[in-house]
Amino acid sequence: MEKFRQFAEVPPKGWNSWDGYGASVREDEVKRNADYMSQHLKQFGWQYITVDIQWYEPTADSSKYHNFAPLVMDEYSRLVPDAKRFPSAGNGNGFKPLADYIHKLGLKFGIHIMRGIPRQAVHNATPIKGTSKTARDIALNNVCPWNSDMYGVNTDMPEGQGYYDSLLALYASWGVDFIKCDDIANSVIYNGTLKKEVEALRKAIDKTGRNIVLSLSPGPAPVENGAFFQRNANMWRITDDFWDEWSLLLNMFDRAEKWSAMSRPGNWPDCDMLPLGHIGIRSVDGPGGNRQTRFTKSEQKTMMTLWTMMQSPLIMGGELPDLDEWTTSLLTNQELLKMDDQITEKYQTYRDAKLITWHAESLQSKYDAIFNISDTELQLTGAQFVALGLPLTGHDIWQNKDVELSKDQSIKIESHDVYLLRS
Amino acid sequence: MEKFRQFAEVPPKGWNSWDGYGASVREDEVKRNADYMSQHLKQFGWQYITVDIQWYEPTADSSKYHNFAPLVMDEYSRLVPDAKRFPSAGNGNGFKPLADYIHKLGLKFGIHIMRGIPRQAVHNATPIKGTSKTARDIALNNVCPWNSDMYGVNTDMPEGQGYYDSLLALYASWGVDFIKCDDIANSVIYNGTLKKEVEALRKAIDKTGRNIVLSLSPGPAPVENGAFFQRNANMWRITDDFWDEWSLLLNMFDRAEKWSAMSRPGNWPDCDMLPLGHIGIRSVDGPGGNRQTRFTKSEQKTMMTLWTMMQSPLIMGGELPDLDEWTTSLLTNQELLKMDDQITEKYQTYRDAKLITWHAESLQSKYDAIFNISDTELQLTGAQFVALGLPLTGHDIWQNKDVELSKDQSIKIESHDVYLLRS
Amino acid sequence: MEKFRQFAEVPPKGWNSWDGYGASVREDEVKRNADYMSQHLKQFGWQYITVDIQWYEPTADSSKYHNFAPLVMDEYSRLVPDAKRFPSAGNGNGFKPLADYIHKLGLKFGIHIMRGIPRQAVHNATPIKGTSKTARDIALNNVCPWNSDMYGVNTDMPEGQGYYDSLLALYASWGVDFIKCDDIANSVIYNGTLKKEVEALRKAIDKTGRNIVLSLSPGPAPVENGAFFQRNANMWRITDDFWDEWSLLLNMFDRAEKWSAMSRPGNWPDCDMLPLGHIGIRSVDGPGGNRQTRFTKSEQKTMMTLWTMMQSPLIMGGELPDLDEWTTSLLTNQELLKMDDQITEKYQTYRDAKLITWHAESLQSKYDAIFNISDTELQLTGAQFVALGLPLTGHDIWQNKDVELSKDQSIKIESHDVYLLRS
Amino acid sequence: MEKFRQFAEVPPKGWNSWDGYGASVREDEVKRNADYMSQHLKQFGWQYITVDIQWYEPTADSSKYHNFAPLVMDEYSRLVPDAKRFPSAGNGNGFKPLADYIHKLGLKFGIHIMRGIPRQAVHNATPIKGTSKTARDIALNNVCPWNSDMYGVNTDMPEGQGYYDSLLALYASWGVDFIKCDDIANSVIYNGTLKKEVEALRKAIDKTGRNIVLSLSPGPAPVENGAFFQRNANMWRITDDFWDEWSLLLNMFDRAEKWSAMSRPGNWPDCDMLPLGHIGIRSVDGPGGNRQTRFTKSEQKTMMTLWTMMQSPLIMGGELPDLDEWTTSLLTNQELLKMDDQITEKYQTYRDAKLITWHAESLQSKYDAIFNISDTELQLTGAQFVALGLPLTGHDIWQNKDVELSKDQSIKIESHDVYLLRS
Repeated sequence: MEKFRQFAEVPPKGWNSWDGYGASVREDEVKRNADYMSQHLKQFGWQYITVDIQWYEPTADSSKYHNFAPLVMDEYSRLVPDAKRFPSAGNGNGFKPLADYIHKLGLKFGIHIMRGIPRQAVHNATPIKGTSKTARDIALNNVCPWNSDMYGVNTDMPEGQGYYDSLLALYASWGVDFIKCDDIANSVIYNGTLKKEVEALRKAIDKTGRNIVLSLSPGPAPVENGAFFQRNANMWRITDDFWDEWSLLLNMFDRAEKWSAMSRPGNWPDCDMLPLGHIGIRSVDGPGGNRQTRFTKSEQKTMMTLWTMMQSPLIMGGELPDLDEWTTSLLTNQELLKMDDQITEKYQTYRDAKLITWHAESLQSKYDAIFNISDTELQLTGAQFVALGLPLTGHDIWQNKDVELSKDQSIKIESHDVYLLRS
Repeated sequence: MEKFRQFAEVPPKGWNSWDGYGASVREDEVKRNADYMSQHLKQFGWQYITVDIQWYEPTADSSKYHNFAPLVMDEYSRLVPDAKRFPSAGNGNGFKPLADYIHKLGLKFGIHIMRGIPRQAVHNATPIKGTSKTARDIALNNVCPWNSDMYGVNTDMPEGQGYYDSLLALYASWGVDFIKCDDIANSVIYNGTLKKEVEALRKAIDKTGRNIVLSLSPGPAPVENGAFFQRNANMWRITDDFWDEWSLLLNMFDRAEKWSAMSRPGNWPDCDMLPLGHIGIRSVDGPGGNRQTRFTKSEQKTMMTLWTMMQSPLIMGGELPDLDEWTTSLLTNQELLKMDDQITEKYQTYRDAKLITWHAESLQSKYDAIFNISDTELQLTGAQFVALGLPLTGHDIWQNKDVELSKDQSIKIESHDVYLLRS
Repeated sequence: MEKFRQFAEVPPKGWNSWDGYGASVREDEVKRNADYMSQHLKQFGWQYITVDIQWYEPTADSSKYHNFAPLVMDEYSRLVPDAKRFPSAGNGNGFKPLADYIHKLGLKFGIHIMRGIPRQAVHNATPIKGTSKTARDIALNNVCPWNSDMYGVNTDMPEGQGYYDSLLALYASWGVDFIKCDDIANSVIYNGTLKKEVEALRKAIDKTGRNIVLSLSPGPAPVENGAFFQRNANMWRITDDFWDEWSLLLNMFDRAEKWSAMSRPGNWPDCDMLPLGHIGIRSVDGPGGNRQTRFTKSEQKTMMTLWTMMQSPLIMGGELPDLDEWTTSLLTNQELLKMDDQITEKYQTYRDAKLITWHAESLQSKYDAIFNISDTELQLTGAQFVALGLPLTGHDIWQNKDVELSKDQSIKIESHDVYLLRS
Repeated sequence: MEKFRQFAEVPPKGWNSWDGYGASVREDEVKRNADYMSQHLKQFGWQYITVDIQWYEPTADSSKYHNFAPLVMDEYSRLVPDAKRFPSAGNGNGFKPLADYIHKLGLKFGIHIMRGIPRQAVHNATPIKGTSKTARDIALNNVCPWNSDMYGVNTDMPEGQGYYDSLLALYASWGVDFIKCDDIANSVIYNGTLKKEVEALRKAIDKTGRNIVLSLSPGPAPVENGAFFQRNANMWRITDDFWDEWSLLLNMFDRAEKWSAMSRPGNWPDCDMLPLGHIGIRSVDGPGGNRQTRFTKSEQKTMMTLWTMMQSPLIMGGELPDLDEWTTSLLTNQELLKMDDQITEKYQTYRDAKLITWHAESLQSKYDAIFNISDTELQLTGAQFVALGLPLTGHDIWQNKDVELSKDQSIKIESHDVYLLRS
């Protein structure tokens, strides 16, 4: 197994600021989520705390970007945290103090970056560390359609690779453990994956010598680039931004089905964050609003089952200190987490207009899930189980009890709910 | 007929600097082409002299753009000519002196503009005339993929329309008669025509009260927007940049066929400039190089026939003072120019792997063309003429003689050549 | 104007059996609709009575086809009417007696045909009239995806053209005045218009010497083939099957906008039949069921306005003998019918999320329509009229009264309703 | 590992009649190839002898199909071999005698089938074994665009599955070991993979209890269906028909790169047959003609290296009795065959306009290939090896010698040739 794949031998589990705060999270908010994770979730395998987009934008206040806003940048065209939002970053400290804080909690620290180099650096022709070129020299006139911060970088020039090398060296020096790079896995306007910049990132990370997990966004990543992603990244988004809407959850079954064959230790197709619990604190994306997740409990079970059965990374989007008992039970279900970590095969086995079945296997166990995707209750007899190739006996994970079904008996699954059997 | 359509009752005829000079033409070069046109071509209907892209870019030196180069701009975020390249534009004169010069020759003056507002204006937040907003306020984060000068403009804001109004007011005050707006008729990355900015231009021109022909680029303009173009512009490009290559000329038959039904007085689908005579002086696009056109004489006849039979605008790309006798004969063929001006119907009537026929009609005449698109000589009997619905008698325009064919006789057409009969 | 365009100098108006009967109409049903038209609608310009698909299929009983059903065919591989459904067609009479009946009423007779040659003829290798080839020899292995009756025909073979010639000769001998040919204008699986078979039909009709209007289906016909359709047909469908659903009506505005520039005497882009009054008698397509149209009165006004302002053919789908007073008023509105017949320009002038405006002109009049496409009532002031370029005074066609609006006054338009002003 | 995957634990190796004989191979020709394989290739792992398409078409004489030709069929709508072409198939023996012959040689027997049910069965409404339905009842009006033999089958009906069950039961009874099903993996006109018929085949094979390898054609199979193919088939074509043309071979690098992540024991993405040695005996496809392969020796080495490094099935297309020494050396290169059987990872590691590198690993060895895809000789220094991550020492498989390169030394690779190092 290549070295970088060892950085994520099981699907990464953590928290990310986007679903709650959009582009606007502050240091105190990050810390309180880290504190909570350390105390209540760490023992279940949760470890990454990630600051999402625009920690270098002083006026960021929601998930809406301020077009062409000035950004905080060092003398080498590299973005650094705004010290008003992240006080410990003052005096040129960068994220080092915050990373140290999180490491002390026994957790890992992640940041979001945008592909490219700041447009302001290009228009001002600022230097690239270790080179005689400026940002203007290495910039490409390709831009992100949904955010006005960056230009692309010409990685065919040694100085283009040099920019990425200097950037990752800086972030590694802060103690960053996880990079979520955006505007790179799928670009609608530039025809798919920006492969050259992905490769430049891979090289730049490898040069740091630090174990930094690489996560690529946004999705849907093109399936035909699957082998490419396996060679370069630890996780990549298989979907657009995911929110608490049934249509998006239903849609994920298609994507999970397509990607299931590409998933293996160190390479995890990513179903995106879990919009559970208290979300939308300052984010106005998705259905919008400061709210509890709009997913029903059935839908939350369906989401958790699909994500773990697909071995998606599990990145909680909701505010951790506000977790209620129900949501906590989802994040600490040891059967699910074990499935997420240990299965070695998984795939969809059947689909019609009403139900979808998936099968997974670990060395010890087999798992079968029946998802009711219809809008009414579904009743299935044991005979139908047999016809679908499903086992009649096993352990019902969501009910946490052993079951034994005869051909004449039947089970009921609520609309949008799931039945998950370990055997 | 709407007023703006009256600005171009027949297909415009003129000269444009692109094929010779790319982005780099200078005032003296423009003047010498205007002088020549006035003396030798004006009486045949040629009248527009157009300065193509980047007359505001001091370092422009070919058809390759210098990414992120500083541009010459007035205090209201409007691009103005570089006074080194256009000396008469010094002291804030803009193009007025050059336009005056050209008008005195009995000709009309055109300029190229890029859709949008300069990026440097946006990053510096410079003012928009007559409004309290800045360039940053009205800019959209959408950009041209092949040129780094401009951002798009939000024309849903009154100040966005205001920018275009102030721009056209300035250019009208100079005496501009023709605007070729680029990055607007077809954008590969932004999904077709940028309709809102086209409509803003239409309104801004109408407000000037000046008869300014509006030409939209680049192509291929989407055919499904044909009615939209008819409502807003005088001409629009139906093709990518056209150069002296047979494959491009052959391809134009497809495009002409599709667009022939959308062509009418005031609305002229545009087959692009005529790369005839001496071209590539400083342009390095297309097959490249300072050269005589690479088209054979047969191909030149084919091009001239298709352009005039399609009623395309005729915009000469080659250097006028260097015209030889042959090329002059193409530009001054009165039969062709009359067809271009007077026909009221035109369409393809037949196509197979070897030949294409077109038919056109004016009030006085009928025209039939037989294009040999094969790589060998084509022989056609009178009987084949009849089967194809072609007349046996008439005036052979290219040979300039009356002909009468019997069913047993045959004609020969060289490879890539054309037979054009008026009857 | 080419001769075939004279067959339809104004948009054709008539009745078609599909919306009421699907593939199953019988002779008595056709006659009673013809009788009614002759007595009540003929004086308003309605004249075509068309028998839609599968009059050669004995077991047809709705709009659902019986796959691979045997068809009634003559000895030359040509489909002829089933004599059980059309008793007058017995003894090899074909549709001649029914056509005679309809002609005596002062009306014209139309039939639907499918592109191609019956599959049963191909599998049995039956003869092609006037040739030594069989159906198997001239068949192409291309088929309609939604109907299993026919194979395509190789019109590059003289015998392929010969088949179409013999077919049209037979139908002309019956007195057919209108051919609606299906599976030809747009094929999803064979990449657009089947141009060669369209051209073969054009030639075959021209050879009959009879004035037979040619109508092509299904839609959406590709806009890029507009010039081709103008050269070969009198009308062509710009839409999939149209039914009484608002989403389909709303969608027609897009299509009408695209096609408006391609519409002219003899060439009429076709918005499909009017599902008004009593429909779905045996048809089970669309929203299905034996019913009065589901369109509200507002929507019916909108449809009639768009169809006539676009100069679409007007083909009534509902059962004529069951017409009520309201529906009759729609079909006999002389202002609308005059607009449909006499305008020479028409186009969309504005569109936003709530309203769409169209403008049309005849030699005598100008017409402006405001369509409220929103789901709530729309209020517009005279000032807004001016901003939209709409006239303040004129004749309100739907209210049938003269109006004069000041800038302060306002009008109201119900949801999905229309305001139509002649000035 | 699922049972069916065990049918092909290593990539299948064999011979197929298509490249030599098109649709027209005869029994004696099949036998002589089997004889040769048994004597000269079997010991290297070659074992499948497959009769390609239309063994049921009496008049088949090349790779061109006779549209609508009558086929040999049993009383249950199942195609059976034509006894004139396969004499041992007389008296209703089917392929049993030929399969027996091949089995006695220690080899395995394969046949090609087309998805669906014969059109002649549908038009004659012949029975389906074990059901009360006829071919007409279960047929779907979807057809192959390039062959007129079959209709699709409605596998949602039990009798549709029943047809496939009866078909596979018959073929299993003959002793068939390998089914290549066509018109199923990728259909241009029906939008991708015909999944329901693939699933029906999977079930029908599983019901036979016989180990029958399932191979799906044609390609390019859609990459997004990769997980689906893994669940249902042993091999599937990732390409259109492959022939001895460099452009096709070059193109295979793209496809191999995309599919490399989907390849594993029992599931082999298939680069198609090897057009080596004497081909085109009666096939007229591809570059056509009775010939020795047009590939240069360099290209043949490149093909063999890519196929084995990708773990493609190896299906020889050329006539085995005519093998020369060179071609034999390609098919019996034990290093390559071992790589094909034993590697567990493989992927492209670099690509630019001139060269492509691949890396593969087995438990014992690492493999690195450098493909020169340019049209001129390529020279690479040891320093460049290091920059590309390639080892300097190892065993040069094609030269069959150990090598040790210093940074200053360089190697040369001919145009279209390959350098393959085991380390």
